[in-house]
Amino acid sequence: MNFQQLFNTQFPIIQAPMAGVQGASLAAAVSNAGGLGSLPCAMLSTDALQNELQVLQSSTREPFNVNFFCHRQPEPDATREARWRESLLPYFRELGVDPDKIVNGPGRFPFSHESADVLEKFRPAVISFHFGLPPADLLARVKSWGSKVISSATTVDEASWLENQGVDAIIAQGLEAGGHRGMFLSEDITTQVGTLALLPQVVASVSIPVIAAGGIASSAGVAAAMTLGAAGVQVGTAFLLCPEATTSVVHRAALQSAQVRETALTNLFSGRPARGVVNRIMREQGPMSSKTPAFPFAPAALAPLRTSAEASGNGDFSPLWAGQNASACKAIPASELVRELVAF
Amino acid sequence: MNFQQLFNTQFPIIQAPMAGVQGASLAAAVSNAGGLGSLPCAMLSTDALQNELQVLQSSTREPFNVNFFCHRQPEPDATREARWRESLLPYFRELGVDPDKIVNGPGRFPFSHESADVLEKFRPAVISFHFGLPPADLLARVKSWGSKVISSATTVDEASWLENQGVDAIIAQGLEAGGHRGMFLSEDITTQVGTLALLPQVVASVSIPVIAAGGIASSAGVAAAMTLGAAGVQVGTAFLLCPEATTSVVHRAALQSAQVRETALTNLFSGRPARGVVNRIMREQGPMSSKTPAFPFAPAALAPLRTSAEASGNGDFSPLWAGQNASACKAIPASELVRELVAF
Repeated sequence: MNFQQLFNTQFPIIQAPMAGVQGASLAAAVSNAGGLGSLPCAMLSTDALQNELQVLQSSTREPFNVNFFCHRQPEPDATREARWRESLLPYFRELGVDPDKIVNGPGRFPFSHESADVLEKFRPAVISFHFGLPPADLLARVKSWGSKVISSATTVDEASWLENQGVDAIIAQGLEAGGHRGMFLSEDITTQVGTLALLPQVVASVSIPVIAAGGIASSAGVAAAMTLGAAGVQVGTAFLLCPEATTSVVHRAALQSAQVRETALTNLFSGRPARGVVNRIMREQGPMSSKTPAFPFAPAALAPLRTSAEASGNGDFSPLWAGQNASACKAIPASELVRELVAF
Repeated sequence: MNFQQLFNTQFPIIQAPMAGVQGASLAAAVSNAGGLGSLPCAMLSTDALQNELQVLQSSTREPFNVNFFCHRQPEPDATREARWRESLLPYFRELGVDPDKIVNGPGRFPFSHESADVLEKFRPAVISFHFGLPPADLLARVKSWGSKVISSATTVDEASWLENQGVDAIIAQGLEAGGHRGMFLSEDITTQVGTLALLPQVVASVSIPVIAAGGIASSAGVAAAMTLGAAGVQVGTAFLLCPEATTSVVHRAALQSAQVRETALTNLFSGRPARGVVNRIMREQGPMSSKTPAFPFAPAALAPLRTSAEASGNGDFSPLWAGQNASACKAIPASELVRELVAF
């Protein structure tokens, strides 16, 4: 079964769900343009989820994808949190932030029966997961609605695991991709593989459709991925400058600067490795640090630094998510970008 | 100018020079099969260089490539060397190695006028460099023979630098590639980019031919690279099991095991980051260590451990160079592999 048959879209393009920088508006624009738009739900409360889904459903009659994280929520670790804040003290002083006023929060929510209760009313055509899959009962529940289920693999082992769990397609997420690595069978970032190497090996090892992600930013990139056996592609970074995205001013500025050529995997912003443009805190703390609180608790301490810096147009403490190929980032409507990506 | 016009070969395929695992035999087989065979010279004395070139020249009438490293040779640092040996003591004890009998050696030689004196008699069609380019007088000297000069870029900045220095073509070496990263404008491995992202960005930023390297292991991989604008490809890992390669028994075993799916960049074996299959010492010392002597002095202390372990068929201390896509590794003649790579 090819991509368009599986997802009932005109083009074999998924717009990557990008929590924090887009909502229903971008998803609807992409779905209306013939791709598969995605709504990132990891940072939405159930009320916000309900609202966004209503907006999305009223904005398009085409299929769309909703994306959830499915990590296990750990217990907060007060000692680790205190140690992390300790190492941020010089920044708190510099920016005049009172660390005692930091508000703890869960940051990102894993998919739950509460989310499923909301989702059930909408029964989206496609549900994608990041960090593996939810528990079996939840997975069975969303499949019972007829929703297609997809998830990301960053290694051949993860692809085989997902196929065995019964997903409908696999996203082969190469190391070039922006945002969170979907890795879930290992925490070791040395296991992560470039798209050109990962994709054909995943295609050879599973018998379900494989969607390529990471580094694809042109119709030539889409064609190259298809040549290597991809059924379709997932593109994220290229959409970040579209007017329908909610990308912040500092994030947009970074994407349009020479700075965007240097990205790195960092766990500073969430606790899990994710790719973003190298900025001051990544440089000074090292992009990967053993001091950050576990995912998803890392953002709390950085939040006031980020807010304060962004207020003066400065992205020193912001997650400037981007993949390794930002060359397609243009401030054009998402529908135009979709057409460019499929103009073979 | 396309690849075949530039290099006068039948196919747009370079066999990557791989010091330590191949010599004239593999290079000749590839050149005779219509690709561009490569002789790695970084570990050859001038006498050995003379011999290998004679063998190669008598084995093929087709063009071939000779490859040199062009690092600056640092002064040995006795303190750092002692500290590194200190941390290897448990291994020395375990394997019954006397660390006082370790023989220091230069490991790898940078390209020099002495190498050029030998090379001048052969005037090879192509000379490739790794780690940038040699000093201007040496570069001018080899160009005066009519040899084409190529070198590896791991970032867009390195590609622009090489073009400005007057190379004839650029190898865009993606992060997937096995062996040494050619990086020379930065020592920071977070700057390294996957082939699918690097290649189109390099193609867009230079006006000379670009050769794709890293993760290519099939005719589909070659076609994908050409779709992204590559003039040709460089393939290394796929040749490691060919009978013409001198790949060791433990290295061949690793390449044929499930172990080969996990590679990492490591500086333990030479002092510079290079990709190999993760083995015991990489796991125990961390693949990247701040303790290793500077390139090219790292191999001396490990050499007796490697020799001792390999004698009992064990690769715990051996550099098991491999890229992130070893799926094309087959024990077939190099000529057959060349034909498979161009069978579109």
